[in-house]
Amino acid sequence: MVNFVISHKNPDTDTICASIMFAKYLNLIGKEAKSIKLGDLNNETKYLLNKFEVLAPDTVLSLDEGSNIYLVDHNEVKQTIEGFDSLNLVGIVDHHKFKIETSNPLFIRAEPLGSTCTIISKMFFEKELDLTKEEASILIGAIISDTLYFRSPTSTLEDRDIVLKLNEIANISDLEAFSLELFDAKSDLGEISAKDMIKIDYKEFDFGVKKFGIGLMETTNPQYALVRKVEIEQAIKEIKSEEGLDGVIFCVIDILKERNIAFVVDEFERDVVKAAFNATIDDILADMGSILSRKKEIVPVLENYFK
Amino acid sequence: MVNFVISHKNPDTDTICASIMFAKYLNLIGKEAKSIKLGDLNNETKYLLNKFEVLAPDTVLSLDEGSNIYLVDHNEVKQTIEGFDSLNLVGIVDHHKFKIETSNPLFIRAEPLGSTCTIISKMFFEKELDLTKEEASILIGAIISDTLYFRSPTSTLEDRDIVLKLNEIANISDLEAFSLELFDAKSDLGEISAKDMIKIDYKEFDFGVKKFGIGLMETTNPQYALVRKVEIEQAIKEIKSEEGLDGVIFCVIDILKERNIAFVVDEFERDVVKAAFNATIDDILADMGSILSRKKEIVPVLENYFK
Repeated sequence: MVNFVISHKNPDTDTICASIMFAKYLNLIGKEAKSIKLGDLNNETKYLLNKFEVLAPDTVLSLDEGSNIYLVDHNEVKQTIEGFDSLNLVGIVDHHKFKIETSNPLFIRAEPLGSTCTIISKMFFEKELDLTKEEASILIGAIISDTLYFRSPTSTLEDRDIVLKLNEIANISDLEAFSLELFDAKSDLGEISAKDMIKIDYKEFDFGVKKFGIGLMETTNPQYALVRKVEIEQAIKEIKSEEGLDGVIFCVIDILKERNIAFVVDEFERDVVKAAFNATIDDILADMGSILSRKKEIVPVLENYFK
Repeated sequence: MVNFVISHKNPDTDTICASIMFAKYLNLIGKEAKSIKLGDLNNETKYLLNKFEVLAPDTVLSLDEGSNIYLVDHNEVKQTIEGFDSLNLVGIVDHHKFKIETSNPLFIRAEPLGSTCTIISKMFFEKELDLTKEEASILIGAIISDTLYFRSPTSTLEDRDIVLKLNEIANISDLEAFSLELFDAKSDLGEISAKDMIKIDYKEFDFGVKKFGIGLMETTNPQYALVRKVEIEQAIKEIKSEEGLDGVIFCVIDILKERNIAFVVDEFERDVVKAAFNATIDDILADMGSILSRKKEIVPVLENYFK
């Protein structure tokens, strides 16, 4: 029976490349597998897969009851495929915090590293499985993307080491230049709506008393968002009301300058951000300093604040 | 800062050997670690550690706030150290179903194999870390114990393969004879009280509407328990009332004949066992056929029954 390898909703480069390469890994160790995605590729992922001529996973929004599934780069029910409870969870590869309850023993490989693709690369190296030049290249691209070229506080020495080891196969001559290509592709959003901009890299969190949506836009060109302030304000208010959230924070992150400016459109978010992050606020924009990581620098602070 | 490697309450041979050997693994990869236990060794574990002159972990019932901990052979809060919420969970190695919620990304290595020590042995082999003859021997002992010498339905081909690979180091000439030594040690309970007998390998489960305690006694001599029927009935009634449980099932498992006779002392348990397992009941004893695994054959059936 085929095993479906599922990337998370609002897919980013790490989750897509992880799903492609983990399906490859499973096939190589004798377990038939197929990667699927739950939404459109972002421009960075498109650029990366095109450059190395790797096919994107099919979009599949539901699976037959009882299908075998692996989750990559996520483990929470609300970030995965609809109908999850009717599927057979066989395994997880992830680098996030965990919130799961399973009925059966399963395969889990989790490490607090900068990218799920770092873990998957390690699994290839451990079993001495062959990687093509193109496969090594998309793994490098995904690790660079998720660690912001090792700038993120989630990045570790092991992420760097694995990229260097992958590059013995990929032979990318200038990794920094490659990172800038990726970040430019990520920043090239074309004619995107304000709401789609907020949803590029967006997750919802339940902090017990309050429910939040947190969107990130990692970009080399923050002005791209900041000049559309009025539209974005309106879009955030719509998201809050449509999804019944108490708060939405939308962070515009300048990857190269390592600077975070967050939209906080209502008084509630402004009070929270002021108290929890000691942020300076100007109208509906909060200066979040050099906070780059939702996982390591935003969510734990809010969890603690609402405890 | 030292990392404490914690085995589960009511420790069995697998959890104790896993804690000793995972602490060793961490030390070898440069992370200071110390194994601890939460209760007394059973006779099988004592026999195994004595035979190969391996020191048992210290018993430690509480740790300083913020201490780094790894859990082995369990992942649920109610099976671990008191004050868990004040500790810093760094990682888990386990082969059970999962029920966890963490605040931070962590290390997890889980596989649906017969023994946690199989997973830990794989980690040694993957990193090509040296094992002494004694270390390989206790890993073999733990795998034999948890898989009932490959009889349990939780046992896999990989458990067998790993035992054979370990035995290239351990050089145990007759593995079957070794398994009988272990099972005899496990069955030699000395002057144990009926309550302690039930608690040898005992876990509690919350099935939503009903809370159950399930004890297993794996033995080569089931008569040892069955002749003490009246005492055991009384002890089960005490446990139910002391711990506010809806039901307690105590399975006496003949390892060699692969036969399970369960104590079901009240009408409630008798009704459940009859309906869920189609068991024949004689007075307070249910014939559970060849059910050997709590994890794979008892808990999922009860979960489903109470859904």
